[in-house]
Amino acid sequence: MNKLKSDLLYLVKNVIDTSLPDKAVSKKLDDILSKQEINDLILIAIGKAAWRMAKAAKDTLGDKIKSGIVITKYNHSEGEIEGIEIYEAGHPVPDENTIYATQRVLDMTKNLSEKDTVLFLVSGGGSALFEIPSDGITLEEMQDLTNQLLKSGANIVEINTIRKHLSKVKGGRFAQHVYPAKIISLILSDVLGDRLDSIASGPAYPDSSTSHQAMEIIKKYNIKVSEKIIGALKNETPKELTNVESHIIGSVKIACETAKNTAEELGYNTILLTTNLSCEAKEAAKFLASIAKEILESDRPIKKPCAVILGGETIVHVKGTGKGGRNQELALSFAIEIEGMENIALCSFGTDGTDGPTDAAGGIVDSETCKKIRQSGFSPEALLDNNDAYNALKISGDLLITGPTGTNVNDVIVMLLTSSPH
Amino acid sequence: MNKLKSDLLYLVKNVIDTSLPDKAVSKKLDDILSKQEINDLILIAIGKAAWRMAKAAKDTLGDKIKSGIVITKYNHSEGEIEGIEIYEAGHPVPDENTIYATQRVLDMTKNLSEKDTVLFLVSGGGSALFEIPSDGITLEEMQDLTNQLLKSGANIVEINTIRKHLSKVKGGRFAQHVYPAKIISLILSDVLGDRLDSIASGPAYPDSSTSHQAMEIIKKYNIKVSEKIIGALKNETPKELTNVESHIIGSVKIACETAKNTAEELGYNTILLTTNLSCEAKEAAKFLASIAKEILESDRPIKKPCAVILGGETIVHVKGTGKGGRNQELALSFAIEIEGMENIALCSFGTDGTDGPTDAAGGIVDSETCKKIRQSGFSPEALLDNNDAYNALKISGDLLITGPTGTNVNDVIVMLLTSSPH
Repeated sequence: MNKLKSDLLYLVKNVIDTSLPDKAVSKKLDDILSKQEINDLILIAIGKAAWRMAKAAKDTLGDKIKSGIVITKYNHSEGEIEGIEIYEAGHPVPDENTIYATQRVLDMTKNLSEKDTVLFLVSGGGSALFEIPSDGITLEEMQDLTNQLLKSGANIVEINTIRKHLSKVKGGRFAQHVYPAKIISLILSDVLGDRLDSIASGPAYPDSSTSHQAMEIIKKYNIKVSEKIIGALKNETPKELTNVESHIIGSVKIACETAKNTAEELGYNTILLTTNLSCEAKEAAKFLASIAKEILESDRPIKKPCAVILGGETIVHVKGTGKGGRNQELALSFAIEIEGMENIALCSFGTDGTDGPTDAAGGIVDSETCKKIRQSGFSPEALLDNNDAYNALKISGDLLITGPTGTNVNDVIVMLLTSSPH
Repeated sequence: MNKLKSDLLYLVKNVIDTSLPDKAVSKKLDDILSKQEINDLILIAIGKAAWRMAKAAKDTLGDKIKSGIVITKYNHSEGEIEGIEIYEAGHPVPDENTIYATQRVLDMTKNLSEKDTVLFLVSGGGSALFEIPSDGITLEEMQDLTNQLLKSGANIVEINTIRKHLSKVKGGRFAQHVYPAKIISLILSDVLGDRLDSIASGPAYPDSSTSHQAMEIIKKYNIKVSEKIIGALKNETPKELTNVESHIIGSVKIACETAKNTAEELGYNTILLTTNLSCEAKEAAKFLASIAKEILESDRPIKKPCAVILGGETIVHVKGTGKGGRNQELALSFAIEIEGMENIALCSFGTDGTDGPTDAAGGIVDSETCKKIRQSGFSPEALLDNNDAYNALKISGDLLITGPTGTNVNDVIVMLLTSSPH
């Protein structure tokens, strides 16, 4: 394996290690405990990484945790944690177990005093896994409403505005429920831009959406709703919360900064282009190849040897029948664009280790990638057209396989370029 | 009009002025004449800007030009130039006038001595406008071959390799023809990367493609060709030329550098991302919006106030029935992405002043663009889906209209961002 690819593998390992919830939770808790005395914590963990985050907190805090609840997705619990109730529930669609487990959380955190502290561990998926509709509204009514909004063309921001106003825990209401107890949130963000009122629909963060907006959305899409729902929508979410403290312990921003620091340690000049990437995967690859050409020709926007770093979540509009994921598609498209160019390699991967419905995290490609695919008698272009990046990169030996990592802070892309070796 | 938009208009004007062939030809000729004594020049100008380049040369050099020929596209001559023969011919498909005019050039430049100098003015379109097939091959045979190659899926590099080997003037053969006379080329480039053996198929530059490659392409696509063509393909193009001197006097690189310098004069930090942009227009806009978000949030990859500059040629896969061009499509897509974001504006325009089949050069958009379109009762998204960027930007008053500029060095995109005005 050449130097660029081995440097990329080293980078990937560092980025994933840093993004694991275990270490990040322990580190942040040590930091918090060094500044304040906290005892008799109630631990509430929600989301796909809830179990791992709770385990790390328990390992760090031990008996300081007096009770706790984990709500995670089916098959995401890895066993018992002493003194903690563990529930599994529906995702992405909430089910009766969601309601039951969330009610347990509300019971455990009611009638608290200002001396109490809730440690709230939040990860992606928390929006579905932590939910009870407002009084008098059923889960079925909420889902019916969501379906109507989706069919009417409402966007996700609009749908979430409605959802927050119909929930007992979303939009800051969980923090309101535990008041006057303090709530310390440690958040593993899978939302681009890390908006704290968006991650898991912000149970412990002031809501920026309003009742008025919710009513306007209902009017705009001409949605038929019951009087009970109208009543609930008119009940405003908290706009200010005095008992919350929030810490993002993992995010695509942090992952990109780790990639940047690691690349600098390896001797590369670095440029972090964006942590908000959001466009068609194969077109992002073409855009990046345009930048790669400029760097190879003119050392701009950055001088070789260099690392160009991006984070975000690209999209694939699937038309073919092949196998792949957005990171593999981006990597294959990039390989096609740089065919014949030397001194360049790119890695695109999901920090969760699972890119699309495949066992790969993404791909690591260079100028040899297309050559190898062609030498095996296949056309890289035809494989890309069929959304078959998995098989293309399998042929060239360029799949990145990490296994599920236990974290998810979205995707990271790193492009490395060096000068011609003369 | 707000400051960002007026700054963009000023930038556009500067970029187009600097890209005009007239000034660039005069300036470079003055520069050349200051270093060497040249008299009795033969002027040969080919391409869509040939007339303007020849006129500028004549105005600068006067009687130093002893004879000359202009070959340009139909309706691109703007009148007589004293002492210069002017021909118009077919573009993009060569016709009998192409052959006639090119033969006139070969006649005028034959039997020259090493004391003679040919001033060769090259612009986009030169490949079709300057052509004579190798001996024994007809224009029809060449066009039939090109059509077969296109149908077989050959790419433009492969097609040009074949074309160069079957031409009397392409691939360095024109320079070979005038040898031992010196040939000074002034080139207005419309080819990304400014490869001198690609612009107008490089009549006065050593060819990097080979007979062997040409034969491989014929085999690869299983093309049926006559013995005469095989014979001609085996005739190698020149790989070294001692009588040529080439100067790029206009290109998207130069246009981008002008944009960069102008933005710096206006007080912006600048980053030139690429002069090689090549991807779907609306996806390029999304990628740029991702970078814009990063800059607004985190001042990276560059600190506000800043200008992000790109050059190149995006693509639109037309599906709708609307009116537009790649620059207008990029601008509208960007406006949709940045709706609700403040302190940001973007301009995308063709330096030729004609974007697609419209009278606009491109668009200048900001956070008001979508608002205005919606207030007029239209959906920006629906207009974009219908490839109707022209009408969308007409509604919002964001079309950039310059009229045909007389130059073409491809497209330039500039995004300006400032800090929140507190």
